[in-house]
Amino acid sequence: MMDQVRIIEIQKSVLDNNDQEAERLRKKLKSEKTFLLNLMSSPGAGKTSCILRILEKLKEEMRIGVMEADIDSSIDAERVGRSGVEAIQLHTGGMCHLDAAMTEQGIEQLDTENLDLVILENVGNLVCPAEFDTGAAKNAMILSVPEGDDKPLKYPLMFTVADLVLINKIDCLDYFEFDIEAVKERIRRLNPSAVILEVSARTNEGFDLVADWFRENVKQWNGES
Amino acid sequence: MMDQVRIIEIQKSVLDNNDQEAERLRKKLKSEKTFLLNLMSSPGAGKTSCILRILEKLKEEMRIGVMEADIDSSIDAERVGRSGVEAIQLHTGGMCHLDAAMTEQGIEQLDTENLDLVILENVGNLVCPAEFDTGAAKNAMILSVPEGDDKPLKYPLMFTVADLVLINKIDCLDYFEFDIEAVKERIRRLNPSAVILEVSARTNEGFDLVADWFRENVKQWNGES
Repeated sequence: MMDQVRIIEIQKSVLDNNDQEAERLRKKLKSEKTFLLNLMSSPGAGKTSCILRILEKLKEEMRIGVMEADIDSSIDAERVGRSGVEAIQLHTGGMCHLDAAMTEQGIEQLDTENLDLVILENVGNLVCPAEFDTGAAKNAMILSVPEGDDKPLKYPLMFTVADLVLINKIDCLDYFEFDIEAVKERIRRLNPSAVILEVSARTNEGFDLVADWFRENVKQWNGES
Repeated sequence: MMDQVRIIEIQKSVLDNNDQEAERLRKKLKSEKTFLLNLMSSPGAGKTSCILRILEKLKEEMRIGVMEADIDSSIDAERVGRSGVEAIQLHTGGMCHLDAAMTEQGIEQLDTENLDLVILENVGNLVCPAEFDTGAAKNAMILSVPEGDDKPLKYPLMFTVADLVLINKIDCLDYFEFDIEAVKERIRRLNPSAVILEVSARTNEGFDLVADWFRENVKQWNGES
């Protein structure tokens, strides 16, 4: 457990070929058997709360690190740090997303050779983060029930690039007008292979299946299945 | 009432001096006595629902137009159009915000000389829209209760540029951990002059005060008070 989180001030990338940079980072992490997950969502959809639930399930069986990206504050890294998992805070200097070179500035601060899983919490934003390959092995995104079931119609790219979609805050499905079958259909139309799981970070519902998704993907990444 | 909404495909700006362009647009609208409000928030905070409540209060006493900006879909402009108020849909071509030149492409499609108030619903995003002056007379932003009370800490610029902050979905204050006094204090620390109003687009609570804010600001814009 850390008393104070490390805050890394990320420098804006000067490289103009992000895809190439992302591929290079992905290969490096693959050779180290480190699975990097890029987690995206709107502000307030529950990224940090979901990460805490995932850590509860997995921290005894994997070596995990967390990178929390935000424009300002370090409250997310502090929350994660209190769970006993190493967390660093990345400050993006106002930038609305992370690209591969920015992600690597965080990765360099973690001892990835000794980590099985790194979770990157991207800046809360449904637009820009979807446009930049971070070098992650997989992308996940969270849609929370209060945001509404029309989000795949308005932010199609985010749902297209996500390998895993968590529909969070399902404990308040009765309170909001949210047609969960319609939203799944809209996601599948954009991205037929996305895995869609219903969760509630408040009640812990659904996180057994999320943990299974991580176990399976980390194994595949290491060539074990 | 329109059967089909007009969709305007916005072209990316080529101008490099957005502040100058914004000032020019603001002067033009001032001379036409048209008050342009730039409304921003996260995806799903309730921008369109709040606009519909504002239109209910004001559409009989002012001539109003609405511009709905989204990356894709035209569902918001259709919803507003059904209220009987003229609404156009702006497609941003993937762009995460509107600047002044992009805003003007929408303005040119409205007969602003005959409008007292134009509401621009910006792209759902707490980061990029805060960085670009659209040429609006005033900025408003919506923070919804399910997003959490930490948002001013993480997205300070958005709260700094907002003249009006609506705290929406207060009907579900009991359901979420959201310290409304803490959030007001965080906003005031960034922006002491912001007007902060509590509303619920679902129950219509608080919109009398929102309508008063518009009446007063439109009057001031026209030099009548």
